[in-house]
Parts: sequence; C-alpha cells; structure tokens
Amino acid sequence: MSGFAEDALRADAFLGGRLKIWQPLRGYRAGIDPVLLAASLPVTSGESVLELGCGNGVALLCVAARVSELKLTGVERQADYADLARRNGAENDIPLEVITADLRDLPSEVRQTRYDHVIANPPYFVAGSRTPAAEAGREAGLGEETALQDWVHIAAKRTRPGGYVSMIQRADRLADLLVAMQPRLGSIEVLPIAPRVRREATLVLVRARAGGKGRFRLHAPLVLHSGEAHEKDGESYRPEVQAVLRECTALGWPR
Amino acid sequence: MSGFAEDALRADAFLGGRLKIWQPLRGYRAGIDPVLLAASLPVTSGESVLELGCGNGVALLCVAARVSELKLTGVERQADYADLARRNGAENDIPLEVITADLRDLPSEVRQTRYDHVIANPPYFVAGSRTPAAEAGREAGLGEETALQDWVHIAAKRTRPGGYVSMIQRADRLADLLVAMQPRLGSIEVLPIAPRVRREATLVLVRARAGGKGRFRLHAPLVLHSGEAHEKDGESYRPEVQAVLRECTALGWPR
Repeated sequence: MSGFAEDALRADAFLGGRLKIWQPLRGYRAGIDPVLLAASLPVTSGESVLELGCGNGVALLCVAARVSELKLTGVERQADYADLARRNGAENDIPLEVITADLRDLPSEVRQTRYDHVIANPPYFVAGSRTPAAEAGREAGLGEETALQDWVHIAAKRTRPGGYVSMIQRADRLADLLVAMQPRLGSIEVLPIAPRVRREATLVLVRARAGGKGRFRLHAPLVLHSGEAHEKDGESYRPEVQAVLRECTALGWPR
Repeated sequence: MSGFAEDALRADAFLGGRLKIWQPLRGYRAGIDPVLLAASLPVTSGESVLELGCGNGVALLCVAARVSELKLTGVERQADYADLARRNGAENDIPLEVITADLRDLPSEVRQTRYDHVIANPPYFVAGSRTPAAEAGREAGLGEETALQDWVHIAAKRTRPGGYVSMIQRADRLADLLVAMQPRLGSIEVLPIAPRVRREATLVLVRARAGGKGRFRLHAPLVLHSGEAHEKDGESYRPEVQAVLRECTALGWPR
C-alpha cells in the first residue's frame, strides 16, 4: 500500500496513545511541531481544514482527535508519504482525504474550494540545497525564498474570507514568513516557542486571517520545558505543554 | 533660541539625574522608549551615531551619558525640536551636532557619511492621518507604509558595512518594520518588550547590520514591571530595567 517497505516503518503513539501514527524509521519523522500546530487551531466542529504538505498526516489527525466532525484534506507531493497519511487516517478511523499533488499544481477540486483553515509546516530546509547557516541568512537563494512565498500565497488563496492560515516554522524564518504574509493576510499573530524561560525562540506559530483587519500581535512565548537548563534525561515539559502533547488539550491563543 | 516659549518648557531628569532634558509641556515628550533604545546600542568609544528624527535629542544624549568620545549627529525636521536638542546638548556639556532637515532630503555632509550606528524611534502615528486601530491594520495607507520604509531605507544607506541600524517601535508595527528591513539589512534581531510577564509585547527593539549574514533571531522578551498586574502607584520596574533607566546601565542583547 505504501511506497515504504513495512520493515522501514514504525507505529508511534501520539497524544498519549489516542493516535497510532506510522512513520518511516528514516526520513521525515514528526516531532512536536505538527502536534503544536494542530493544538493551536481555533477550529470548531463542522469546519474544513486543508493542510499543504501534510506528510504522513499527523497534524490533521491530531486536529481530528481534538475536534469532531471536521472535513479534512491533505495535499502531499511525495506519493509514499501521501499513502502513509491515507493509511494513518484509515487505521485511526478518521476520515481524511489525501491528494497527491504539488501545492503549486493543485487539482481543480482544491482550487475551487475555500477552506475555513489552511495549515502548513513548510519544510525547514530545501533538501540538498545548502547548509543551515547559509540557508537561514537573509541572502538565502531566491529559490528557497520563492518557495516559502508560494506556501503562504497558496494558503491565502485557499482560505475563505475570515478564515485562518496557521503555520509553524523555525523562528529564524519569521522575517521571511512575515514578508510573505503581510501583503496577503491580516490580523497576523505570532506565538514564539522557546525551549526554556529567558531563551530565544526556536519555533514560531504564526496565524493570520484572510481579509483580517486586526493589528499585528507578538504574544508572550510558549515555554516548553521547566527549569533554566537541561537537567535530566526524559521529558521535562511544563504541565500545560504536557497537556497539549499527551492529553490533546487545545493550545489557546492569548486574547 | 528655541521656538518654544520658555514657560512652555520644563527640564526633566533622565538617567537618575545624569541628564537634564528640556521638553515641551505639550507635544512630544520622551518616555522610556528613547532611553531603552540608547541603552541597547552596542556602541564603543570613538564610534559615530546618527539619529534620524532625534526630537529633543534625549536618545543621543543617553548614549553619550553611557559611552564617552562618540561623534553624535541628530537630524530633526521640526526646527523647534532641533533647537531644543541643541540646547539639551549644550546644557549637558555633550557635543551634539543637530541638523534641521527632513530625512528624505538630507544635506550632503550626511549623505556623504556612513555611520557606525544609525538609530531611530520612528513616529508611531502620522499626525492627523487616521485612528490608531485603522493605522495599525495591515491595510494602513500607502503613505504611512511608505514612510516607515523610508526610515529603514535611509537608515540602511547611511550605515557603514557591518554597522548597526537600531530602532524601537510599537510591537504592532513589527511586521511592517521587518518587511522594510529584510531586503536591505541582515542579522536582524528582535527584542520584544512586554509590560509584565506573560503579556504580549507592546514595544520591540529591532537591530540589524548592514551586509549582515546572520540568522534572524527572536529573543526572549524584556519584561518591564514586576508582578502579574498593576498593583500600586509609582514605579514597579524590575531591577534590571530600573538599572537601565536610572543608573545608565547597558541593555545587553542576549548572545
């Protein structure tokens, strides 16, 4: 069924065992990023959610584990990951439509639809392009910058007026992300995510609304771990983060 | 000497009395913003600092109170404020060149110079243009957006390679500021400033380097006040902020 050999896959528990997600042992493996993205969605029953670049589907399935009766659509360019997403939907009994397509060449069924929510966790690096340090710099190649602009541009076009675009991204891409969002979306809000208190942000959750008129907001950081430094092996997530990751609690945005 | 009547002015103490700054009783009065901007400058003796829109000169004079032997130049469009800046320099015995000019029409002596530091606290509102709520929205008029772009563009042009542009701005202008900075400057760093712990940022210090190649960084917020809420009248600044405002301590950027 999947392009991956069975012995190249493993089923991992997410959300405290609420989901069993098949992932390749090598290649892209979901960390906490898609779980945080899913938890941050201000979604209610009956709404539609499109994920651009859904990978093995973990973000969409995490949304479905928290909110019922959603219409979930994932677009994934790599056929083996798209197959994995379909399998993960089926094995978790969650209806999930997965379309194998490049986001720049969406089928007409998607191009003719506007979704309540469009979400994405755009790739942090372009495979094989350059080293992280150079890639992160402001003079990153046009190709990469254009790509992030594409993600935002297409997300904005597929969102209904008043609907939300929500993305999670490495903090050092925030300026690029805002440059892409500012002309196309409004009511932009940034939730920095820092590993520990008083540390710089490593990730950012960014959401914006199609046609939004609200002011830009920079929220207080979400701090992941307790303590000032890494003290022991194993998990040290702060209780509210633990609740998001293990008990499927919503990650509420500040009002 | 000044365009202000003497009885329209008052001398206020800054930096724990190290500076006596004449300000109009009505009109623009410096708050903590220029003091924080001055404290954040990674400046060393012998360097040159240009301030665009220096007002009554308080930011430049605060820099001079902390670091000796600087070459300070302020540009101010409003002649009465430029006169006040000259008077404040003279009365505090700090050499300060003040040029009365619009930043879009700088005299050749400034246009032919590249400075180690260019600083600005661009106006938060365009006088008489629109209400704050509408102004802050992403659809703010082209005039205002162009204006902020001008501040950044001119600052970038006047900074020597490797030199710093440093600005303080309302947090809801951060996206606009980054849109302006991203194509022109590198090594952009943002220091959010929040009134209290776990509150959203109200101000941002943003610095960037001409020709910088470093990654974008979003630092942990500087929290101004102790406690979770306003508890008593008078000052409640946290000790490290108090040190910046009253003891002329540098506001160090995280490494």
